[in-house]
Amino acid sequence: MKNKKNDNFSEWFTEITQEAELCDLRGNIKGFIVNMPWAVITMKKMYALYEAELERKGHKPALFPSLIPESFLAVEEEHVKGFVPEVFWVTHAGDKKLEEKMAMRPTSETIMYKLYSLWVQGLKDLPIKIYQSCPMWRCETKATRPFIRGREVWWIEAHDVFATKEQAEQQVREDMETTETIMHQQFGIPFVFFQRPQWDKFPGAEDTYAADCLMPDGKIIQQPSTHMLGQRFSKAFDIKYLDAEGKQQYAWQTCYGPAIWRIYASIVSQHGDDKGLILPFALAPVQIIIVPIYKKENEMIVRDKCYKIKQILSQSNFKIESDFSEETPGAKFYKWEMKGVPIRIEIGEKEATSGKLTLVRRDSGTKEQVDEGKLIERIQELEEIIRKNLVSKADEYFRSKFFKASTKDELKEQLKKGGFVRIPFCTIEMEGKECADYVKAETIADIRGVPFDSKEKPSPNEVCIHCGKPANVYVYAGKQY
Amino acid sequence: MKNKKNDNFSEWFTEITQEAELCDLRGNIKGFIVNMPWAVITMKKMYALYEAELERKGHKPALFPSLIPESFLAVEEEHVKGFVPEVFWVTHAGDKKLEEKMAMRPTSETIMYKLYSLWVQGLKDLPIKIYQSCPMWRCETKATRPFIRGREVWWIEAHDVFATKEQAEQQVREDMETTETIMHQQFGIPFVFFQRPQWDKFPGAEDTYAADCLMPDGKIIQQPSTHMLGQRFSKAFDIKYLDAEGKQQYAWQTCYGPAIWRIYASIVSQHGDDKGLILPFALAPVQIIIVPIYKKENEMIVRDKCYKIKQILSQSNFKIESDFSEETPGAKFYKWEMKGVPIRIEIGEKEATSGKLTLVRRDSGTKEQVDEGKLIERIQELEEIIRKNLVSKADEYFRSKFFKASTKDELKEQLKKGGFVRIPFCTIEMEGKECADYVKAETIADIRGVPFDSKEKPSPNEVCIHCGKPANVYVYAGKQY
Repeated sequence: MKNKKNDNFSEWFTEITQEAELCDLRGNIKGFIVNMPWAVITMKKMYALYEAELERKGHKPALFPSLIPESFLAVEEEHVKGFVPEVFWVTHAGDKKLEEKMAMRPTSETIMYKLYSLWVQGLKDLPIKIYQSCPMWRCETKATRPFIRGREVWWIEAHDVFATKEQAEQQVREDMETTETIMHQQFGIPFVFFQRPQWDKFPGAEDTYAADCLMPDGKIIQQPSTHMLGQRFSKAFDIKYLDAEGKQQYAWQTCYGPAIWRIYASIVSQHGDDKGLILPFALAPVQIIIVPIYKKENEMIVRDKCYKIKQILSQSNFKIESDFSEETPGAKFYKWEMKGVPIRIEIGEKEATSGKLTLVRRDSGTKEQVDEGKLIERIQELEEIIRKNLVSKADEYFRSKFFKASTKDELKEQLKKGGFVRIPFCTIEMEGKECADYVKAETIADIRGVPFDSKEKPSPNEVCIHCGKPANVYVYAGKQY
Repeated sequence: MKNKKNDNFSEWFTEITQEAELCDLRGNIKGFIVNMPWAVITMKKMYALYEAELERKGHKPALFPSLIPESFLAVEEEHVKGFVPEVFWVTHAGDKKLEEKMAMRPTSETIMYKLYSLWVQGLKDLPIKIYQSCPMWRCETKATRPFIRGREVWWIEAHDVFATKEQAEQQVREDMETTETIMHQQFGIPFVFFQRPQWDKFPGAEDTYAADCLMPDGKIIQQPSTHMLGQRFSKAFDIKYLDAEGKQQYAWQTCYGPAIWRIYASIVSQHGDDKGLILPFALAPVQIIIVPIYKKENEMIVRDKCYKIKQILSQSNFKIESDFSEETPGAKFYKWEMKGVPIRIEIGEKEATSGKLTLVRRDSGTKEQVDEGKLIERIQELEEIIRKNLVSKADEYFRSKFFKASTKDELKEQLKKGGFVRIPFCTIEMEGKECADYVKAETIADIRGVPFDSKEKPSPNEVCIHCGKPANVYVYAGKQY
């Protein structure tokens, strides 16, 4: 690639989305991209893994309308204030003006909870655990970038209702575990869940816990967040149940929103290198590429062997292709490395006659000889080895990006390294907002909040990095996308 | 159920969508429904089967923007005329008016072909075979009904580009085969592909071939259609390639659009009975329901057996549940029959102690005894037996609904039976439209067109049912949804 990931990540990212054919921007509709097959196939696998895990934990899929009448949105005051500025409005059908304008779903609380209020009558109707996989639309005014920030985002939104606060809190933890199981262990994207400051919550939530991840340039990208909605929406939408004593109680709610489209940006960025994409085996559109290497005189035996190996492998569930195009072997290596195919099998005359095959791993570049009879078994092992390698490489980078500072000068210095900088801070309640604004103005750093379940506490003599009052919390600051 | 399918189908359909919990209409947004989990789980399985077949035949998934600028739509004249009257227009984002209004995708020709014109340069870029699974929106002005006609429809649209007319024609036939493999053989919905009259084509197509199916009331419902677009769009969008002689040639195009949401209406209607849904095994959200039948004194041995059987079955990929709710066994039978679960295993004291289990099929109502050790094997057999039974029942009904008429009086008489009535007709070219309009006005029947590849020809003395000129074709007429 022309651009180096560690020197100029931003250009590298743009280049890889084009060279690996992940998207096409020539539709020329600001914030909307054409998602190309190579990206969509991986996103479909991401959806499948995520959905299976949500279903294993009791969620069921539904599909709610994508158009939401204005009056629905208006029910919860903070929510409407938070979303209306970036809503796409449908005002006409054909040449007729609609009686009431409708929002293209920016998120589905208002339409879903209107129905939930009808579904929840008694304890027997709880819990509700429903998700939908669908696009959502927000007219982002900041610069848009493929997969990182756009106006159309394919995501999953899960909306759950419980009888008690404890159950809702338990769900928040479950959502974090799901993020760990899928996004970290399967996709190889490490994160920290931060309890966001009160001024940076999901509009309408009581508390927001957002998974912050890092890009290779050290900037923070927010991935799935899970929200303790408390009883705010249940009161606004009248979601209540008759308890065991026959009293009406408002329900407790949570929601969780992994944006598959955006997590894909993290996968591309985290694992890729200067040769192109590196994909976890489970997510690769092609998992094994067979590349024949032959001259005129041995073409037939090499071809025969390629067919035979493809035959053997097709007894497994692997996605295999063989590249018999006119290109040189070198050009083929280049192409499939760019595409991030996890395993390459090179077959030349030696392999065609010896019963041993040459496997090359994309993640590590290592070559190994494998007995033909042990091929499937070895690839099954490699799937897991590759997954673990990508996770541990990503973890190593992530862990190296936590720093500390006590003053704004130190903070500015540390921020140059990218990542997260721990600073002593007065409070993440609303009163802390002014300090956060000053910190942002002076350092460009956002206050991301307090790590979930963190036991770290400032010592009694530590003071807020801005106001100088006693520090109640350590917060983490960093530059965000 | 209160309503009988064969007496008052329309009410039966409304009742089953509520009793089996397929949708909720209380969002109260005209034409938009809440698709409930029981329907969505089946639709996801339908998507998976359809997508796998399309991919097996060389299609790849992509995702194009759901908002299409007005100027894109305007490129192909007939196309824009056909769709604009029912387009939902986005005119504002937040409180700002958009510079150019955008249509919520009513279908994606215009955005996809704009890109295709960039992708196709030479023969090496062909064929293109791409599909996307997504919602589309059309502001239907006719009465809307859940799954049958709505303003938001989840579908698949496949758009293909070829170098030659022959390849495009071959694709039209492939789309028909895909419909046969999936919609008929897997979903159990028989159809006939009709070449539509020229006045009833997809806007912008040269020829439309649409699969007409029947509802239990004998009315026709159009399911997937495949369109020979010819070179109309390639000329409008400038999709051309350099041929072997170095000359620029316009490409040939086809598109194919199975509406999963609408095919689901056919599945519900075709297979269901007066006890509720009947689902093909492959599409059922729960495939096997275990119902324990016990009294106080034998509760424990029955429960133990249920657990054990569930354990055994979970070694397979079957979706199994056991119903330990407080309801009576009768209430449980009723519930799971309503939901269309293909196989019920009843476990009472006899089954708990004898090593033999009682299986009840939903599709036929037949009971059978199965050795515990042969349970999985038998259920695997039943999956195929049930599929075949549903297909052959549906075929039998479908075949019984083809009639003939030579005069309008005969036609009116035959139309009372529902289904398709073959009539001699002047022509399905544009000149025939006037006759079709008269037939419609006098009989309420639509001219559906000529069956694809039909060899039937009127004899020389037969005349058009309306104008009395010599009949060139047999067309089929019927009442449509």
